[in-house]
Amino acid sequence: MAYHPLDQRSAAQYLKRAGLFPKAAAMTVTEIGDGNINMVFRVQDKHNGHSVILKHAFPYVRCVGESWPLSLDRIRIEADALEIQDRHVPALVPKVLHRNNEMALVVMEDLGRMEVMRKGMNKLRKYPRFADHISTFMANVLFFTSDLFLPAREKKALSGRFDNPLCGITEDLIFTEPYFDCARNNVNPALRPYCERVFWRKSNLRLEASKLKEKFLTQGQCLIHGDLHTGSILANATETKVFDTEFAFVGPAAFDPGLLVGNLFINFLALDGKEFTQAQKSSYQRYVLESVREIYHLFELKFRKNWDDHSKEPAFAVAGFQDYYLRQMFADTLGFAAAEMIRRTHGLAHNIDVDEIQDLERRRDVQVSILETAEEIMLRRGRFRRMDEVVAVVGHRGRSTGIKRSRKSRN
Amino acid sequence: MAYHPLDQRSAAQYLKRAGLFPKAAAMTVTEIGDGNINMVFRVQDKHNGHSVILKHAFPYVRCVGESWPLSLDRIRIEADALEIQDRHVPALVPKVLHRNNEMALVVMEDLGRMEVMRKGMNKLRKYPRFADHISTFMANVLFFTSDLFLPAREKKALSGRFDNPLCGITEDLIFTEPYFDCARNNVNPALRPYCERVFWRKSNLRLEASKLKEKFLTQGQCLIHGDLHTGSILANATETKVFDTEFAFVGPAAFDPGLLVGNLFINFLALDGKEFTQAQKSSYQRYVLESVREIYHLFELKFRKNWDDHSKEPAFAVAGFQDYYLRQMFADTLGFAAAEMIRRTHGLAHNIDVDEIQDLERRRDVQVSILETAEEIMLRRGRFRRMDEVVAVVGHRGRSTGIKRSRKSRN
Repeated sequence: MAYHPLDQRSAAQYLKRAGLFPKAAAMTVTEIGDGNINMVFRVQDKHNGHSVILKHAFPYVRCVGESWPLSLDRIRIEADALEIQDRHVPALVPKVLHRNNEMALVVMEDLGRMEVMRKGMNKLRKYPRFADHISTFMANVLFFTSDLFLPAREKKALSGRFDNPLCGITEDLIFTEPYFDCARNNVNPALRPYCERVFWRKSNLRLEASKLKEKFLTQGQCLIHGDLHTGSILANATETKVFDTEFAFVGPAAFDPGLLVGNLFINFLALDGKEFTQAQKSSYQRYVLESVREIYHLFELKFRKNWDDHSKEPAFAVAGFQDYYLRQMFADTLGFAAAEMIRRTHGLAHNIDVDEIQDLERRRDVQVSILETAEEIMLRRGRFRRMDEVVAVVGHRGRSTGIKRSRKSRN
Repeated sequence: MAYHPLDQRSAAQYLKRAGLFPKAAAMTVTEIGDGNINMVFRVQDKHNGHSVILKHAFPYVRCVGESWPLSLDRIRIEADALEIQDRHVPALVPKVLHRNNEMALVVMEDLGRMEVMRKGMNKLRKYPRFADHISTFMANVLFFTSDLFLPAREKKALSGRFDNPLCGITEDLIFTEPYFDCARNNVNPALRPYCERVFWRKSNLRLEASKLKEKFLTQGQCLIHGDLHTGSILANATETKVFDTEFAFVGPAAFDPGLLVGNLFINFLALDGKEFTQAQKSSYQRYVLESVREIYHLFELKFRKNWDDHSKEPAFAVAGFQDYYLRQMFADTLGFAAAEMIRRTHGLAHNIDVDEIQDLERRRDVQVSILETAEEIMLRRGRFRRMDEVVAVVGHRGRSTGIKRSRKSRN
C-alpha cells in the first residue's frame, strides 16, 4: 500500500481493513496527540468499548508544517524500538498490535486507564512502583542492547537499523539553541533579561553543552529511548508504561537516565512557584528527591546485576572496568540532566511543570532557580561521586533558599 | 556476475573481459600479497609493461582458512574507503581503476615503484616528505568525515556504509588477547617468563585496554583507516601512498595516529637490538623520534586549520571546544599507540622490525623494552600535555638505558 496521510475517517477504515475491528463496528476516532511531531488517534468500537491507539506520521513535523520535512521512516524506527523494548521489559511498554512501514503507522494497545505521569506529578500524585519499574526499564534496555551484552556485530547491525532522522531535533534543541539568543527559543519575557545579561554569556556552560553534543553524535553505546521524560511515561499506582519511542537510536547510555533525572529536578524546583500549601509542597518535594535517589540507586544495582549475570565479554569482566563505566555514565547522566533542565526552561519545548505557573515573574523565579541548579550540576558533574550528593544540592536550592538566591543573583 | 574465487589464470581473464587489458595482451600474474586476509595479484602486460594490482577476497580469512569465515563485503568496504580518501587526499592513496562488489575485487594502480615503508625503515631509509604527507592524510580524512564537518545525517549514513566485519579482528587481537595467555598469541619463548611473571599480571594495564576497547566499539567519530601502520604505507623520497584500507570504519579519530605512532616507537626501540653501528642507530633513532614529533605537530596544526576554515557547526566553534577535542584525541592516540606496541610484541601479528632480530634473548630484551615503554605511555596518557614529552620518555628508554633497565626489571 502506497503511503497516504490518514484523517480520522480513513484511519477507521484502515483499521477495519487491517482486521483490527469488525466490518460492522461503529467507531469513534479521537485525536489525542499532544505530540508535536505525529498524529495520534484513539479509535474505539462503540459497541464493546474496545479501543486502540494509532500513531501515524506525516512527511513533516506536524506542529511546524511542510516547511520542516521529516522522514516517514521514523514510525518504522519507533515500532522497531518498541518491539525490542518489549523483549527486555515486556510489562513496561505498550504492546504493538499492528504496524505498517509503508503507511508510516503503528497500532498499539490503548492504555487510557493510565495517566501521563507529568500531569499526575503536577497534581502531586505519587507513584509507589515507579522507581522500581523505570530503573528496570533503563537497566534492561540499556544493558541488553549494548556491547556489554551483544556481540559487536549485532550491536552494529542494531545501530544501522536506528539511523533516526529525529536525532537532529535533539542535537539542535538540546545542545545548541538554548545557549544563544536563537529565534526558535521560547523565552518568558520576564526571564529574557536574565538570559541576556547572565545565561547567554556563560561560555563555560556552552562549552560543556558542546562536549555533550559531541558525545550524543558519536557515542553509540546502546539503544536509548531518546526522550525519556515524564511526558513519555504512563503511570498509575501499580503500573508504568514507557511510550513515544520515536527518538530511539543507538547513543550514549547516560542520555535516558539524564533526561529523566533532569525532568524530575524541574518538577521539584517548579513546586516552589505553585499554589499548594507549604506542607503539600514540602512533602511532594521530599518524594521527588527520594524518587531520584531511588531510581538511580536501583538502576545502577540492576545494571550491575545484568552485567555480572549476562556479560560474556572477557575484556569487560576486567577488575575495575564496571566501576569505571558506571562512573562515566553517572557523570554523563548529570550532564544530560543539566542540559535538559536548561533547554526546557527557555528552549523551544517547555514543561507544563513550570509553564502552568501563570504569573510570569513568579515563573521567572522558578526558571532562574532551574538554570542556576543546572549550571551547578553541569559544571560539577565530574566531581560528584553519588546521586545523594546531587540530590542534596538540588534539595538545598529548592525547598527554602532557592528562590531567594535566584532573586539576589539577578541584581 | 556471481561470486567465484579467482586464481592467477582466471584473474587475468577477468581483467581482459573487464577491458583493463587488450584481448591480445600476454599477461603475467604474480601473487604479491603478504596480506593475511586477502589475495593480492600484480598483473602485467609483458608487451608494454603496463600493470595493475588486483585485490580479491575469499569468503574466509586467507591465512587461517575456511574455519574462519569472513564476509566478502569487506572488499566493497575497502573500495568505498579508498574512494572517499581519494576525495580528500588524492595524492596520497592508490587510484581505484575498477571494482566489482559481487566478485569481491578491486583493481588499483600499481605502485611498484615504491617500497613498503616498514621494509625501508628496517634498512634505515629516511622519508623526508613523510611527516608532511601522513599528517595531511590524517588531518583531512579524519576531519572531513567527522561531525565537525559533515551534517550529522551524512555522518550517520557514512557510518552505516562501513559496518566492517574486520572490526572484530581488531577488537580481539589488539584489546583482549595480548592481556592474557591466549592460545592465539605468538610469544617469543624467551619472552614467555616475563609475560607470565610480569605482564599478564598487570591488571591496571588490562583495565586501560578495556577502556580503549569500549571506545573502539562505541565512539563513531569519523572514517578511520583502521590499520595505519608502516606496513600499510608505500613511500619513497618524494611520495607517500596509504593502502590496505580494508579495516576502515567509522570509529575513534585517535586510532589512526595511535597505530602509526605506536609502530614508529616499535621501530625506534627495535633498533637497540640490531646489528648496525652505534652511529647509524643513533642517527636513525633521532630521525624516528623527530618524525613522530613532526607528524603529530603537523597533524594537529592541519586538523585545527581544517576546523577553523571548514566547520559549519556553531556548537563546535564554542571557545575551548577545539582544545578539549584535541586534548582528548591526544590522550587516546597515546592509549592506542601503547595498545599497538603491546599487541605487536606478543599478540598474533608481529612486526618484522622486532622479529628480524634472530637471537631470541636479544629479541626478548627489545620486546621487554617495548612492553615497559608501552606501559608507561598507557598509564600516563592522560597526564602528558604534548607529544614532545612522550618522545622524551621513549628516547630515554631507547637510546641508552632501555635495554639495561629491562634486564633489571626481569630479576
